[in-house]
Amino acid sequence: MRLAASLRQRSATTGGASVNPGFAVRLQALAAVRSPLCIGIDPSSELLQGWGLPLSAVGVGRFCAIVMEAAGDRVAVVKPQVAFFERFGPDGMRELQSVVATIRAHGALALIDCKRNDIGHTLAAYGEAMLGPDSPFGGDAMTVSAYFGFGALAPVLARAVATGSGIFVVVRSSNPEGAALQDARLADGRTVADSLADAITRFNADLGAAIGPVGAVMGATAEGEAAATLARLPRSFLLAPGIGAQGATFASMAASFGAAAQRALPAISRGILAQGPSVTALREAIERAREGAFRVVEG
Amino acid sequence: MRLAASLRQRSATTGGASVNPGFAVRLQALAAVRSPLCIGIDPSSELLQGWGLPLSAVGVGRFCAIVMEAAGDRVAVVKPQVAFFERFGPDGMRELQSVVATIRAHGALALIDCKRNDIGHTLAAYGEAMLGPDSPFGGDAMTVSAYFGFGALAPVLARAVATGSGIFVVVRSSNPEGAALQDARLADGRTVADSLADAITRFNADLGAAIGPVGAVMGATAEGEAAATLARLPRSFLLAPGIGAQGATFASMAASFGAAAQRALPAISRGILAQGPSVTALREAIERAREGAFRVVEG
Repeated sequence: MRLAASLRQRSATTGGASVNPGFAVRLQALAAVRSPLCIGIDPSSELLQGWGLPLSAVGVGRFCAIVMEAAGDRVAVVKPQVAFFERFGPDGMRELQSVVATIRAHGALALIDCKRNDIGHTLAAYGEAMLGPDSPFGGDAMTVSAYFGFGALAPVLARAVATGSGIFVVVRSSNPEGAALQDARLADGRTVADSLADAITRFNADLGAAIGPVGAVMGATAEGEAAATLARLPRSFLLAPGIGAQGATFASMAASFGAAAQRALPAISRGILAQGPSVTALREAIERAREGAFRVVEG
Repeated sequence: MRLAASLRQRSATTGGASVNPGFAVRLQALAAVRSPLCIGIDPSSELLQGWGLPLSAVGVGRFCAIVMEAAGDRVAVVKPQVAFFERFGPDGMRELQSVVATIRAHGALALIDCKRNDIGHTLAAYGEAMLGPDSPFGGDAMTVSAYFGFGALAPVLARAVATGSGIFVVVRSSNPEGAALQDARLADGRTVADSLADAITRFNADLGAAIGPVGAVMGATAEGEAAATLARLPRSFLLAPGIGAQGATFASMAASFGAAAQRALPAISRGILAQGPSVTALREAIERAREGAFRVVEG
């Protein structure tokens, strides 16, 4: 039995599905009301300094509080970037835990951007760390990478299904250095990116949902062969970083994503955060981005 | 100017190289005396339970203390697997910080196994979190993944050179699901794994060292096209997981690694840890593994 089918069966037996509506269902409902915008929380040294905050876990905590005050209950998905929390050690990781709780308290979904990857029990432990309200970090979703192959992701996919969480697999990144690897061809002629896209779609299809718990990270610049990859992901939310700082705009993204744009989650970090620390200025930037994101999905 | 050459020039200007002997130099000296064995510290739920320890950060801390008591000053490299620390949230990450300090207090090198990966400032922040005595976690080296392309690793490579630390890039993993991606062919005909190997070797060569700071993770099972990849890594230490639990032995590894075996770091986790919590039994397993590792590199 395929992994997804066996997970669905188990979920039906335990009644888990009725207790915990899936990530995709929650996201779809929220995005329709709040907009599909995903705000990235990237407390980099550069931004902490720019906001006059100390380069410490305390500074990161204040940064998060300001962003969340500005975002309020207007945003569907907030994406803390773990590297900028880990940067300040265990105290920084406590701020990650704290901001995830704040995001959820605002009724938004917390997407932990950590790009974790490994095999077996190790990857399972990352899933246990990040996914579900009973986990230490308590995320609604996490990002993962697939250098170990899609099959190696099974332990986190299983946890996502069991906890009603989401997974976003990096398929095509927004940086130019990634293209050679992501466009490399498997023995069957498909690109690495396309083969990941197919595996994601099969997993979601086996669960029987129109949109499944496994999404894809697809750079908003979406150049070259990206259109073909997008067409292979009809059952996925598409987390799209790269708007603003990395050169894409809402309009260019809507054009390059085509029909897939209706499942896109345009992700902005620096483009919004650079307006801080003024809550008013951040709120205005978030409003503009919310409207931009609505325009992308409404075509 | 290539990245490595410009880093070397900067290092020479600031005198950084003389202050901080490179990771490869320190590792080579230690491995000759202590053996090239790398012990993995994997406090998985399974092992914590098997050792009668609580499934908590406290349990992880006790687990680490027992392993390090057994390892003493007999091992060159100790590799904590971050997922099993992160699993217990910020408190777990404090145990990571603590075990790295203990490893270094035993005169061994702490290789933080975290497979971090991302782009730009984000990846730089992971390097700042993990590498160098002044970083929060204080590792001598870390593992990274390269789905974003070798070029995207520049920020952590720069930090490794600046701090005299090491980087191990996953090139060929020990799990079967990884082969399709790692054997995919770039436009120039090379496999993904081979192109990473070439980029690593060029980086190390540009630094002018016989063995450079950038190593490779190469599964100890080393099947199929792995021999060709190994031949492309003449300037790298080769971290080789997969002995014991994943089917390779010291003898099979020596055979499949061929001439590259002299730069191998055979890595064992469960094969040793399953002997705990008895310090005596762990010590005996470590002794056997040390001898096995010496045999691998001595051919």
